[in-house]
Amino acid sequence: MKSAELGQVRITGGYWKQRCDVNRDITLNTEYIQLRDTGRLHTFRQTWKEGDPFEPHQFWDSDIAKWIEAVSYSIIHNPDKDLESKVDEIVDEMETAQWDDGYLNSYYSVKDKSARWTNLLIDHELYCAGHLMEAAIAYFQATGKDKMLNILCRYADHINSVFGPEAGKLRGYPGHQEIELALVKLYKVTGNEKYLRLSEFFVTERGRQPHYYDAELERNPGIKRYDRQKGSKLKYADVQAHLPVTEQDTIEGHSVRALYFLSGVADVAELTGRADLIAACERLYDNMTQRRMYITGGIGDTADIERFTYDYNLPNETAYAETCAAIASVFFCHRMLNITRDGKYGDTMELTLHNGIMSGISLDGTKFFYANPLAVDAKAVDEETIGINIRHMGYKRHEWFGCACCPPNLARLLSSLEMYFYSHDCNAIYVNLYGDSEFSLDGITLSQKTNYPWSEKIEITVGCETSFDKSIALRIPGWCRKLGVKVNGMTVSPEFKKGYAYINSIWNDGDIIELILEMPVEKMQAHPYARHNTGKLALKRGPIVYCLEEEDNGKHLNTLFIKPTDHFNVTYDADFLGGCAYLTGQAFKISDEGFERTLYAPYAPEYIPVPIKAIPYAMWTNRTPGDMSVWLNALK
Amino acid sequence: MKSAELGQVRITGGYWKQRCDVNRDITLNTEYIQLRDTGRLHTFRQTWKEGDPFEPHQFWDSDIAKWIEAVSYSIIHNPDKDLESKVDEIVDEMETAQWDDGYLNSYYSVKDKSARWTNLLIDHELYCAGHLMEAAIAYFQATGKDKMLNILCRYADHINSVFGPEAGKLRGYPGHQEIELALVKLYKVTGNEKYLRLSEFFVTERGRQPHYYDAELERNPGIKRYDRQKGSKLKYADVQAHLPVTEQDTIEGHSVRALYFLSGVADVAELTGRADLIAACERLYDNMTQRRMYITGGIGDTADIERFTYDYNLPNETAYAETCAAIASVFFCHRMLNITRDGKYGDTMELTLHNGIMSGISLDGTKFFYANPLAVDAKAVDEETIGINIRHMGYKRHEWFGCACCPPNLARLLSSLEMYFYSHDCNAIYVNLYGDSEFSLDGITLSQKTNYPWSEKIEITVGCETSFDKSIALRIPGWCRKLGVKVNGMTVSPEFKKGYAYINSIWNDGDIIELILEMPVEKMQAHPYARHNTGKLALKRGPIVYCLEEEDNGKHLNTLFIKPTDHFNVTYDADFLGGCAYLTGQAFKISDEGFERTLYAPYAPEYIPVPIKAIPYAMWTNRTPGDMSVWLNALK
Repeated sequence: MKSAELGQVRITGGYWKQRCDVNRDITLNTEYIQLRDTGRLHTFRQTWKEGDPFEPHQFWDSDIAKWIEAVSYSIIHNPDKDLESKVDEIVDEMETAQWDDGYLNSYYSVKDKSARWTNLLIDHELYCAGHLMEAAIAYFQATGKDKMLNILCRYADHINSVFGPEAGKLRGYPGHQEIELALVKLYKVTGNEKYLRLSEFFVTERGRQPHYYDAELERNPGIKRYDRQKGSKLKYADVQAHLPVTEQDTIEGHSVRALYFLSGVADVAELTGRADLIAACERLYDNMTQRRMYITGGIGDTADIERFTYDYNLPNETAYAETCAAIASVFFCHRMLNITRDGKYGDTMELTLHNGIMSGISLDGTKFFYANPLAVDAKAVDEETIGINIRHMGYKRHEWFGCACCPPNLARLLSSLEMYFYSHDCNAIYVNLYGDSEFSLDGITLSQKTNYPWSEKIEITVGCETSFDKSIALRIPGWCRKLGVKVNGMTVSPEFKKGYAYINSIWNDGDIIELILEMPVEKMQAHPYARHNTGKLALKRGPIVYCLEEEDNGKHLNTLFIKPTDHFNVTYDADFLGGCAYLTGQAFKISDEGFERTLYAPYAPEYIPVPIKAIPYAMWTNRTPGDMSVWLNALK
Repeated sequence: MKSAELGQVRITGGYWKQRCDVNRDITLNTEYIQLRDTGRLHTFRQTWKEGDPFEPHQFWDSDIAKWIEAVSYSIIHNPDKDLESKVDEIVDEMETAQWDDGYLNSYYSVKDKSARWTNLLIDHELYCAGHLMEAAIAYFQATGKDKMLNILCRYADHINSVFGPEAGKLRGYPGHQEIELALVKLYKVTGNEKYLRLSEFFVTERGRQPHYYDAELERNPGIKRYDRQKGSKLKYADVQAHLPVTEQDTIEGHSVRALYFLSGVADVAELTGRADLIAACERLYDNMTQRRMYITGGIGDTADIERFTYDYNLPNETAYAETCAAIASVFFCHRMLNITRDGKYGDTMELTLHNGIMSGISLDGTKFFYANPLAVDAKAVDEETIGINIRHMGYKRHEWFGCACCPPNLARLLSSLEMYFYSHDCNAIYVNLYGDSEFSLDGITLSQKTNYPWSEKIEITVGCETSFDKSIALRIPGWCRKLGVKVNGMTVSPEFKKGYAYINSIWNDGDIIELILEMPVEKMQAHPYARHNTGKLALKRGPIVYCLEEEDNGKHLNTLFIKPTDHFNVTYDADFLGGCAYLTGQAFKISDEGFERTLYAPYAPEYIPVPIKAIPYAMWTNRTPGDMSVWLNALK
């Protein structure tokens, strides 16, 4: 089973088209301006000297790379000569920046040429290299221009000459994974197996003894081994290098690193057929989704090294749930979905897309969240009074960040979102995501028409020149407890297998599949050990997680209690928050009468019924920023 | 109304005698060893040079001072020549360390003589001076030896020559308050009014415009203006210098500073009769107790600058609730109690003593808490995984701290605890605290016999050579909803006034007062806006706040729900945790069945009844350290 390629799919309408159009029309240019105005854009000119403004940073190459990648995907369907010439200018500068031996990193070229490859644990050279490769491949596929691709192949060749299992090479691997998945892409586009072998080396060498990072420090005793911004010590587990991945049972450390890594592991596993690597991916996915993931799909619960902490530790106000980590999770789940044909990976992908990722960008496409908390007490943030590290956090999206990984990551995801909708193999076409779209391959077309995720009905029209005999497999989300499938108006009984409904038929042009995924409002509870959510429930409908905002419900959202049996109304409003279904219902508010001069009193709460309104979590703080909460007290 | 002096009261038995005896027999020596082994003890020798171990710290003088003060109070009732000679040795060193002009600070003497008085906001000279004065007075009162007192008077005279409203003096005031209350003590012991005037100046000048700290920075542009340990900026409100105290409506900033300050403000108010200062004290007390205090009496809710944040922000796991702040609160409440004769201050004093303070020291007197959280998830602390500043925090008491303010503060409080039991004025004797003790003044003796706080009956026997006509005023705690008073077996109807029951009588030798303060187990709730406690209740009996510990109740305390109407049994066990009343009853535990591979599910919790046992919060983590929680989920 493999994904439909970008050129084979178009998003034709509805929710995703709206968000993707904003990405193309607004976000790409907004980010270009930010890259320019923060000095990143021309970092490959390498003209910076001590004392100049805009001191280069180790991540800068990756910021530009992700933006180029985003532009590349976008121009496949929407050619844009202006954007293309902007990329070409950067590529020209990149060419001049490449060293004779193929090395390419604007930071080390300017800051300290002798320091290259000396501190893999902390520095980000291989990470930047990976992003540049992804960008080069995307740009080549979008335009046919191979200049950047050639630059990156030369760089990959250089990297291959430095790292690997062979005698005389360093047995190192990146402190921030990313190049693993990029090398697999490079292998796929060039057919050059050495890139796959190098990726496999990076994947499997990681965490082995004797430990490369120990050896590296011994060889270069002067190198920094700490997280400079916070003074905290980086442990090997923080970069998933405490053990070989095949021996890891829990998902640990920096969440973006973890999920980029697992994406690469899945890629290598698929191409090499290594069952131990697949098993590791499945095991760590299970740990993540069964113990360490927010209900929004967000992952990485603490700002401290932006990492996973431990099972069931999912604080809401201080949830880090970095946008990039959620995106990386989609990358991983998408790969696992294609490898396993198991819809549960599609469920996590859809959940994360609709909630933990889209909360990261404002509806107008100009502002971003790095961290995505599940509850906000605005006063705590305003006054910086909560005594925790709220770096990148808050309840108002930002125009940009010093560490600007998330905005261009969102841009590249949204400009390639088509890719996640459909997959296919020789027996079936798989519909992974629902939304107005068109898939075309080998004379077959599937056209979806739906107001999903706001409405429960999806219509898929088959187009073909000649009848064909294939399964059409519809992902049936895990949240769905009742569904109906009709073909040409007749109820059918598909074959259900691992989260997909396989409709086996000989299809004719104009056949219509109607899928109903019933979407009652559900009150969800968290695992009993998730102590931050004890006695609480969250409102969810279909794949959409809801929240209460101060704008609709006043301050002190914590005083509201929901009766679990109470009914909530669903209203779709095309003019509200760009068009969405919101929920209305009743809550019970604890009375504060008698508490004006009392902080503690005998337990005797009184409840007053009040109306409440819940909006999709992804759309919070697009009006007046203020308090917000996903988890609500349950009136038991 | 003034306090009984130390020599007039003896604690004769029961809970407090046990803890005070441990303080005298164990803690004083334990702390001496720590002072010695950490280089503090002989800091006044001033022999330290760059490169030597034990680099002096700005707070060191205060650590020694508080220990001397503790020893002094202790030897009033329990002469100890060994301890006394240890103090004498320090005082001799102090004498040699004093500058010709009276200045005395071991840190500046060694580190940078030219820097004295240049950075009042950040540095701690006046703070150390205040503690040294308190120690000198206590040692003089305990032993009659005036050497240290004379040293400190000379220092006070020097300070008075540097600071004040007069032309040519600096209009400065301490960055860490303490000297205000010490100067008042110095005035009382010497009768020298200039010390009172200087204290009044420090109290009233604070926060005025033009702002002294602005001027100081302008004059000494090189001085540090940041909290060096955490990189966070110190704001004037953090040291209560944002406004004159008479214009402050909310209690702000570093909680120890705030309460030492208010203690000094109350002292100055009492002696000068300034109503605006008293009003400020009352207003800030109200804000603290009605909006910013833990149910344990703990104050200062964040590790960030160890401060108050904002109304109703009282997180449990990250509660800072510094032991010193609770002690300072007792100092302040005690003063306000004597000034106002209003028992509510006695209530806060008692609550804080029994809970937020005594949690700060192990039952064996050798280990201490700096921060006193109200809930612990041990895993979060063990793995340092919660992404917050847990400096000084944890769930195991420490033998000592780098910043060691709390241990000697506990020692001096416990060795002077008698002082808080009784007050008197010309019309009445006030019984403020309950516990086996004897008060003697002018031929009158009151002897208390009780197992308070574990039992509700208190017996007070009057002793006198000749009959006397005075009220005996018994504090009736605010938590008490039903009480009984008998004199010589006959029920009487005292006059109730501001939290005291005044029994007006002509008293004869051998008269017996019997007071019953009924102590049902109460389930308490917090103010609805206190979002960390929503839907929760705390178990309280009399002045004692209870908690659940992992040792008795297993892990995942968050899964336990209490039915608010359920009855709890009270058992006094003389052999349990040094003798205390614990509670047993039933809770309902959320079943985790079906959740092994599920993180989120439709809301349908199932509850299983389980027995639970609650112990006094002050005694937590004296057995196997582990999870703990004061606030428990209520099953509504």
